[in-house]
Amino acid sequence: MNDKSLSQISLPIENELVRFGEIFKQSLKSKVGLVDLVTRYILKQKGKKIRPLLVLLSSKAAGEVTERSYRGAILVELLHTATLVHDDVVDNAETRRGFPSINAVWKNKIAVLIGDYLLARGLMIAVEGNDFDFLKVITRTVKRMSEGELLQIKKTRSMDNDEKTYFRIIADKTASLLSTCCEIGARAATNDNSEIEAMRNFGENLGIAFQIRDDILDYIGKTNIIGKPLGGDIREKKITLPLIYALKNAGNSESKKIIKIIKNGKTSADVKYVIDFVKDKGGIQYSEKVAEQFASEAISNLKIFKESIYKNSLLDLVEFIVKRKN
Amino acid sequence: MNDKSLSQISLPIENELVRFGEIFKQSLKSKVGLVDLVTRYILKQKGKKIRPLLVLLSSKAAGEVTERSYRGAILVELLHTATLVHDDVVDNAETRRGFPSINAVWKNKIAVLIGDYLLARGLMIAVEGNDFDFLKVITRTVKRMSEGELLQIKKTRSMDNDEKTYFRIIADKTASLLSTCCEIGARAATNDNSEIEAMRNFGENLGIAFQIRDDILDYIGKTNIIGKPLGGDIREKKITLPLIYALKNAGNSESKKIIKIIKNGKTSADVKYVIDFVKDKGGIQYSEKVAEQFASEAISNLKIFKESIYKNSLLDLVEFIVKRKN
Repeated sequence: MNDKSLSQISLPIENELVRFGEIFKQSLKSKVGLVDLVTRYILKQKGKKIRPLLVLLSSKAAGEVTERSYRGAILVELLHTATLVHDDVVDNAETRRGFPSINAVWKNKIAVLIGDYLLARGLMIAVEGNDFDFLKVITRTVKRMSEGELLQIKKTRSMDNDEKTYFRIIADKTASLLSTCCEIGARAATNDNSEIEAMRNFGENLGIAFQIRDDILDYIGKTNIIGKPLGGDIREKKITLPLIYALKNAGNSESKKIIKIIKNGKTSADVKYVIDFVKDKGGIQYSEKVAEQFASEAISNLKIFKESIYKNSLLDLVEFIVKRKN
Repeated sequence: MNDKSLSQISLPIENELVRFGEIFKQSLKSKVGLVDLVTRYILKQKGKKIRPLLVLLSSKAAGEVTERSYRGAILVELLHTATLVHDDVVDNAETRRGFPSINAVWKNKIAVLIGDYLLARGLMIAVEGNDFDFLKVITRTVKRMSEGELLQIKKTRSMDNDEKTYFRIIADKTASLLSTCCEIGARAATNDNSEIEAMRNFGENLGIAFQIRDDILDYIGKTNIIGKPLGGDIREKKITLPLIYALKNAGNSESKKIIKIIKNGKTSADVKYVIDFVKDKGGIQYSEKVAEQFASEAISNLKIFKESIYKNSLLDLVEFIVKRKN
């Protein structure tokens, strides 16, 4: 399979994505000037739009894009945007997608409220469309996402993360929403429960692979591409898969030394030291292998769907996600 | 009518409130230790529980307390708790009900996530109970609440608040939820649309009176009772009804002087100066009169309900709210 770019992957649903963009923009309008100002700022920062892409492709792979598919895509993108805005408060982030973050421009108070507003807007759209099944899925997802983030904070403080907890955290904080995208896309197109379940599992496995790749990129990515500095997780004392593996495969005294550097280190040299340690111990290759396993699992989840250009795009997306450089 | 205490008002639904407390506690359980820790902390701070009280009394006044009434009460209390936790981030509050606030103890990041978690839990309970009508009401309410807060922030910055905008802000940020409590309580007990609408209007008018009273208490309350310092709004440059009225009835140069003090003043003497100015200009009496008008409106909204001890409690609650000292 040739590696495809995100725009090549999106090609079969190009028109649908344009329509999505229009409805999304419309859905952000507010009679409160400050809300409009902030949401226009958000709209300027074009993200990868992987979540709407997943909803629409899942609908196509399981049948057709329907009005419910669009509402589902708007719902997940609003929820995702809400969590990004809240995450920036959570992480004290100063930039997001290369732009100053909402909390950096307008302070925490506004970031918190805009996040709440976006979440409410998303849920309203599902409520008004009578998409009760979407609400069932999405409220559970919001719960999982906040629990995942909170568990990560706890583990960051105690600095004793292990693989099992790591997978629980990334499944809850990241994979839950990608899984929801695929499930909602399928629900909008079919009533077949085995297809809905297959799409949910596909999204969950894809999401885990996605987050592992994200955590790898923190060790090998480039600042100017991903818009966040290399080694950011180390600076925030987040212990992710590459480091968990490296620590497990180092001697006891070396491990203690690394943990001490992460705890107290502040310089770029400290960060570079940890990065080199992880690379030396094979933490990157191991994580890439694990990401590939989840990717394979995701691919096999799609077996029950008939061949189509849409299914192929989902398969290409899996490849894209585990190989992406940003 | 004799003024009654909140516990006297609650008497007719004493047992229902106990049951509510048990279910509420249950609903906050989480498998994530940190979530449990924070929610146990929240449960220790017993608030006035006015919102569940409103839901349960509204159900009784319109029929009976049902399983749906309890779910509605849990939903609004979770939402209210979520907004309190987020508000403390928004306001950088250091205390809440006499306790250190969540953000003061656990920092903003956790406060934001716990708020999201509580909101998601509330919505999940409604989703699992198939209370689609509650979700319709509540998502609109979350949107109104965040818009109201954001409008208030904007007006606080520009310092040009007027009565019309003030009423819009307090209707959205405060009355919307009290209105929702009463509407949900009625919906849980009856299908009669005129009764549902009457309860919604009752809650909206009650909520506006409630917030005006809150804003009055900022000028005449006592720190040790309400757990927030006197003149807090002045320090935060929030221009509320007592001040709006006083400014309108002062000379141009005096108004400018007061605005300047609020903008730049930092000492207790500055705050006291503004409080005395508002009192001198009759800002307190005027606001009390306006609160009484909304209270009367609320009372007349209840006319269509048959006489009962529950309706009487709602009427007593109106009196309680406009006369409360904390």
